[in-house]
Amino acid sequence: MSQSQATLADPALDYLKRFKSIRKQTLNLVEPLETEDLVVQPVSDVSPPKWHLAHTTWFFEVFLLVPHLDGYELFHKDFPFLFNSYYVAAGDRWARASRGHLTRPTVQEVLAYRTHVEEHMERLLLQQPLSPELTHVIEIGLQHEQQHQELLLYDIKYILGHNPLFPPYKEEPNEGDDGSSPLEWLAVNKGNYHVGHQGEGFCFDNEQGRHEVHLEAFEIASRTVTNGEYLEFMEDGGYTNHQYWLSDGWDWLGNQAVKAPMYWINEEGHWLHYTLYGLKPIDLNAPVMHLSYYEANAYASWKGCRLPTEFEWEVAVGIHQPDIPENGNFVESGFLAPKAQSDPGFMGNLWEWTSSAYLPYPFYKAPDGALGEYNGKFMINQMVLRGGSFATPKAHIRATYRNFFAPQCQWLFSGLRLARHQ
Amino acid sequence: MSQSQATLADPALDYLKRFKSIRKQTLNLVEPLETEDLVVQPVSDVSPPKWHLAHTTWFFEVFLLVPHLDGYELFHKDFPFLFNSYYVAAGDRWARASRGHLTRPTVQEVLAYRTHVEEHMERLLLQQPLSPELTHVIEIGLQHEQQHQELLLYDIKYILGHNPLFPPYKEEPNEGDDGSSPLEWLAVNKGNYHVGHQGEGFCFDNEQGRHEVHLEAFEIASRTVTNGEYLEFMEDGGYTNHQYWLSDGWDWLGNQAVKAPMYWINEEGHWLHYTLYGLKPIDLNAPVMHLSYYEANAYASWKGCRLPTEFEWEVAVGIHQPDIPENGNFVESGFLAPKAQSDPGFMGNLWEWTSSAYLPYPFYKAPDGALGEYNGKFMINQMVLRGGSFATPKAHIRATYRNFFAPQCQWLFSGLRLARHQ
Amino acid sequence: MSQSQATLADPALDYLKRFKSIRKQTLNLVEPLETEDLVVQPVSDVSPPKWHLAHTTWFFEVFLLVPHLDGYELFHKDFPFLFNSYYVAAGDRWARASRGHLTRPTVQEVLAYRTHVEEHMERLLLQQPLSPELTHVIEIGLQHEQQHQELLLYDIKYILGHNPLFPPYKEEPNEGDDGSSPLEWLAVNKGNYHVGHQGEGFCFDNEQGRHEVHLEAFEIASRTVTNGEYLEFMEDGGYTNHQYWLSDGWDWLGNQAVKAPMYWINEEGHWLHYTLYGLKPIDLNAPVMHLSYYEANAYASWKGCRLPTEFEWEVAVGIHQPDIPENGNFVESGFLAPKAQSDPGFMGNLWEWTSSAYLPYPFYKAPDGALGEYNGKFMINQMVLRGGSFATPKAHIRATYRNFFAPQCQWLFSGLRLARHQ
Amino acid sequence: MSQSQATLADPALDYLKRFKSIRKQTLNLVEPLETEDLVVQPVSDVSPPKWHLAHTTWFFEVFLLVPHLDGYELFHKDFPFLFNSYYVAAGDRWARASRGHLTRPTVQEVLAYRTHVEEHMERLLLQQPLSPELTHVIEIGLQHEQQHQELLLYDIKYILGHNPLFPPYKEEPNEGDDGSSPLEWLAVNKGNYHVGHQGEGFCFDNEQGRHEVHLEAFEIASRTVTNGEYLEFMEDGGYTNHQYWLSDGWDWLGNQAVKAPMYWINEEGHWLHYTLYGLKPIDLNAPVMHLSYYEANAYASWKGCRLPTEFEWEVAVGIHQPDIPENGNFVESGFLAPKAQSDPGFMGNLWEWTSSAYLPYPFYKAPDGALGEYNGKFMINQMVLRGGSFATPKAHIRATYRNFFAPQCQWLFSGLRLARHQ
Repeated sequence: MSQSQATLADPALDYLKRFKSIRKQTLNLVEPLETEDLVVQPVSDVSPPKWHLAHTTWFFEVFLLVPHLDGYELFHKDFPFLFNSYYVAAGDRWARASRGHLTRPTVQEVLAYRTHVEEHMERLLLQQPLSPELTHVIEIGLQHEQQHQELLLYDIKYILGHNPLFPPYKEEPNEGDDGSSPLEWLAVNKGNYHVGHQGEGFCFDNEQGRHEVHLEAFEIASRTVTNGEYLEFMEDGGYTNHQYWLSDGWDWLGNQAVKAPMYWINEEGHWLHYTLYGLKPIDLNAPVMHLSYYEANAYASWKGCRLPTEFEWEVAVGIHQPDIPENGNFVESGFLAPKAQSDPGFMGNLWEWTSSAYLPYPFYKAPDGALGEYNGKFMINQMVLRGGSFATPKAHIRATYRNFFAPQCQWLFSGLRLARHQ
Repeated sequence: MSQSQATLADPALDYLKRFKSIRKQTLNLVEPLETEDLVVQPVSDVSPPKWHLAHTTWFFEVFLLVPHLDGYELFHKDFPFLFNSYYVAAGDRWARASRGHLTRPTVQEVLAYRTHVEEHMERLLLQQPLSPELTHVIEIGLQHEQQHQELLLYDIKYILGHNPLFPPYKEEPNEGDDGSSPLEWLAVNKGNYHVGHQGEGFCFDNEQGRHEVHLEAFEIASRTVTNGEYLEFMEDGGYTNHQYWLSDGWDWLGNQAVKAPMYWINEEGHWLHYTLYGLKPIDLNAPVMHLSYYEANAYASWKGCRLPTEFEWEVAVGIHQPDIPENGNFVESGFLAPKAQSDPGFMGNLWEWTSSAYLPYPFYKAPDGALGEYNGKFMINQMVLRGGSFATPKAHIRATYRNFFAPQCQWLFSGLRLARHQ
Repeated sequence: MSQSQATLADPALDYLKRFKSIRKQTLNLVEPLETEDLVVQPVSDVSPPKWHLAHTTWFFEVFLLVPHLDGYELFHKDFPFLFNSYYVAAGDRWARASRGHLTRPTVQEVLAYRTHVEEHMERLLLQQPLSPELTHVIEIGLQHEQQHQELLLYDIKYILGHNPLFPPYKEEPNEGDDGSSPLEWLAVNKGNYHVGHQGEGFCFDNEQGRHEVHLEAFEIASRTVTNGEYLEFMEDGGYTNHQYWLSDGWDWLGNQAVKAPMYWINEEGHWLHYTLYGLKPIDLNAPVMHLSYYEANAYASWKGCRLPTEFEWEVAVGIHQPDIPENGNFVESGFLAPKAQSDPGFMGNLWEWTSSAYLPYPFYKAPDGALGEYNGKFMINQMVLRGGSFATPKAHIRATYRNFFAPQCQWLFSGLRLARHQ
Repeated sequence: MSQSQATLADPALDYLKRFKSIRKQTLNLVEPLETEDLVVQPVSDVSPPKWHLAHTTWFFEVFLLVPHLDGYELFHKDFPFLFNSYYVAAGDRWARASRGHLTRPTVQEVLAYRTHVEEHMERLLLQQPLSPELTHVIEIGLQHEQQHQELLLYDIKYILGHNPLFPPYKEEPNEGDDGSSPLEWLAVNKGNYHVGHQGEGFCFDNEQGRHEVHLEAFEIASRTVTNGEYLEFMEDGGYTNHQYWLSDGWDWLGNQAVKAPMYWINEEGHWLHYTLYGLKPIDLNAPVMHLSYYEANAYASWKGCRLPTEFEWEVAVGIHQPDIPENGNFVESGFLAPKAQSDPGFMGNLWEWTSSAYLPYPFYKAPDGALGEYNGKFMINQMVLRGGSFATPKAHIRATYRNFFAPQCQWLFSGLRLARHQ
């Protein structure tokens, strides 16, 4: 056995390889942008891309280098203050809503910060045998950066897509569209099922506590709702008929003057929408995206159906599609929009709103320390989404993965899949 | 069998008797108030007592008299506009936040409105055989008025308890206090259970869909948390240590400068609280009340426990206390505060926050028409409370009854009961 | 000389008589109201009528009885806190925006407060020779109550006029309307003039500092603008053409969706307005009222004219109408609206917006102590109005009297008179 | 006479030279910045520097090239929408508060826009004899750009000075400080004076209408208040004693938690302030700056003095310093802060708050068309400042120049000079 073979088997090298690859991918995402695009924060939810570059770096610095690399000195004494997001236990932080006021450090300085932390992370990974505690935090750091990669795309799209010049993020590839398959109903029988994560691989704390649930018999749609189907709802007065809407959703429509999914623009009677490829006509076969929970729920209500619970969704996937599809539309496909589905399937394309509030599983306990703030403290006023999107790394997603957003959020890559009782 | 006996068995007479009794009870509640107290709305959530008097009357007028009593004419053409609460299907309505601007109609005019509608309701009840549809709406009207009786007390307490003169609502009766029993843990085994309403009696649509759930084994406390226990949390820095709090709760603390349950006032180091009997020292044995969900959850977290889910609560009651206790502290007891519990027990005293979001049961379908807006459209951003309070009529409450409020609400008569996994 | 003659000449008795008469007039103003009307505060600017009853009483208690009547005890220890308006030097106070939350003290208790203070004021007035310092404060107390009488009517009109039932405050008297005179232009020559108060009578500190100003030649209208004239502006698109509006005014129009003077309601193409006599058709000959400064200024701009400065107004009155007219429409006329003017004239009917910002006169110095806060601290962001209205006591007004409101206020009894350079 | 000499005398060439020089100066101002600094808008009042670059260019494009240069085509069809500031007559515009959302056009594109418009302006200036109408608009365009140069520095300072890293804008030059002269009182006699602009040179419409005013005798300070003098006020409790403050100012202090002039930071008992040279200790001899009107007025009140009216200021300058001083601290001095004054003097260093509201002069008439919106529509809720600052071009300022800001603004280069009656 040669040394290099030995080396390849070394978990530290494996981590190093993934670390470098994931860090590189973050830079790839901002590569098409102008410096100006990296700085602004048009609404509080949308962080400056520069902030994401720094915050993901801060995570490694504060949770790994500072406590675990002997003699490590902070790249800059003020960066922990500037780039902590919401970890109260990790100290004071710059107000979230003011991230877009910070022109300094510059993009170049943030890139230097990234390089500095990467060099020291390499040293950390190579200098010591990795304890389980350490690998756990490294793993979270990598998963964390992958989550921010997806948020980066949400925020980039918001920044460019709310600019009246509608600049494209990238040039559209020349891809044929196969058309959408007819919607089929996939059945699941009444019974007890197990949900939650099991096995060796990584998962977040909020997926843990594999447990039993009882489900009534139900059917779930073979694909998410298309733009064409959603347009029928709109043309049937969906946005002006209160009976389809939750009360908070109806107020939200009125207060925000919402008349369509985010990024939809009506030009002289024709619907266009901003995509990462620029302003485009609506593709009727493609999945509808940028829905709030309120819109997803209203559509389902109009259709006489409902959204699946997160457990129905997870169980249905376990039965009808136990493996993540090879040809799924994840970030690796390089396509920056959801694709029309030609076959029944789950995962990839768009996060799917479920009717489940984001709450702890039985036996849930938040981890100790600052990382205990990662998931648990958000378990209120949020709804669960499942399945990953075209912006999710395939290696990042699982059927048990619980994403969550407040019900009024539209800027994520969200869609909806119908369910119904038999 | 005499005619009067026959008459007593008549369901219409039975309804009439309950109708008169419930309507009378509403007036009893405002009897201790001054005219001035009936008019104001210090915050949007708190409606003027006068508005409750009129709105509960509007309910009978619009959903029963107008459609079902031949020749009925509105008491006043503008009252449907003024006193509709949130029924979009029932037409336009005066803005909720401006209810406290309406000095007219006067209290006397609203009382005349009540009398007018009561006389016509009597006519309706006696003139025709009651169809099931009609009795269903009558029943909802009665339950609706009972719900508003409890809200009336919340709102009256808010109005008087935020007045710097702290006027008592009533004189305190001379009641001995037995002291609180030690907290015991009641166990429930892992297994499948049925939840939701069954049987002949009335229930709201949100309780329907009796269905099976699977529960892990758990224990639930024999009583709710006391003021003394809650003070320990406060004195241990509970309100200043972020780690016990949900993120939204922590922000709420900061934004609202919350430092204690609502109505608690610290005078030179001593805690007092406003009660319906005026400003009083805290009774350490009595149940703590006026907690938001955030506070209830933070206390449980500090204690190393959690709140029960609504299903755990319902199943535990079914096992440990299948009948509503004779000596429960409901509105009929006439005591206007929760009592220290000397025995294990559920129901009455205080509504108990559960860890369940308010969501539809399987097969839930909102009724058609305006009454479909009664419950279903609020199934977002709210948490379920169970059990009824000292302000709830005993005949109004059930173990399956689902009350719900937004997690930041403090002005209801809410408390908390701990649960834990074994 | 008989004793009664002596008594009549006694300044203390004279004050007592005026005191009683003015206090009585305040009660007369609320006599037509229901208890409910006295309690609410629909917007921050509009205080509950009950509050005016108490605050004017507080003024006498705190500035006269407490410092000057031996052995005087507060009617209620909390009332100084509850009924101080804005005198920082006089101690803490209940937040202005929350005056409408206070259902207690009740109206009856406030009336008892009034009686108590009146009895003690009578004692104070009779028991001692009145020093100049004391008479000065008594005089301010009386003037203060007269000012609040006018505010009372503004606030009563707001409360009743924003109620969708539009209840009249009083029944309309049967008065003929003479029609409005044609507008004439009254000329004033270029030159130096004296402005500000002189002589023996009472004036507020803001009128003091009689001083010389230089005016260019100008003309001023013989009467204020009528409803008919203002309608021409409206029908010419006055509210939708930016060029007539100050920038802040244009924003105010947009933000508040203002389309007409306050209380104007368009019913199927016809303009009505709420008056203290109820909802009435617009009288084209009557002066237009309830204009903000922005509207007054926009009208003048549309007309190719301007508003007079406060000095132009004062000098013009000195030349063209040196005495207050006997038949002026002041509160003594008992008519609760402005009257069409049949002759040239100034004073009464409506306060007239001038183009002068409310600023100190040369040599102005605010008095020492809490009463120094009466006028001086408001000398920013306000515009001066002159002349008094139908709600002003004739004995309260002077040509030098400077009233002031923020430019967006509409709920006062305000109108506009044109001016122009020759 | 050679042709070049003739050319130099040509007014078009003169304009061209000034045009080029002024345009160049704008670029000089942003030269020390990073691209990131040019994009953000931390508060609504502070525009992104990039926006200033584009807006001043838009002014020339829309008011000169489009109407007057044959065949001119817009550089970009959307730029008039993006870069119109507040000219309603010039069409729709991007919302002011969202200027900081616009990452595109990029800085490079805006610079290209500048070059394009400059080339065409050169063509316009040279191709035709300049009519008086045209030269008037050109002149306004140049003055307008100079005004924005000063605003640019305000906004740059705000952006850098609110960054927790406090990056300097430039390196501080090595300048000796002569110390401040003792304050002298300069007297002006009672009498009639003329104010307002006269003569051939350019002035804004708001200075026109040379007219006579009458002034009481007064004295005015020989220099503005120093940091040391202002510190005495602060240390005497100036910010916590209501009696020095206007009511709106007192509320502003409380709501904004203002405890010192903008940019002052207390570090362990020592006052520092952010300057364009970075964070520095307070120089006690230098003029105090970044005061709101409320602070200036409170200081004067504490000192037993007052602010001068704008007419007192103008007349005093006419008497005591009829010419603009050669050695004044204007932008040409290259020093980016006010200097301690060693001699009595006016103009330069800091704009001085006067006690005059910004109102029209007699005979004022706003120009026709969009340029009529330049000054007139802001004549409400603003106070006049006089004299120019270290950021004002010497050729731009005059004794009659009326600057104006809302009384709460602190971010301008403002100071205060005392006045008093004799």
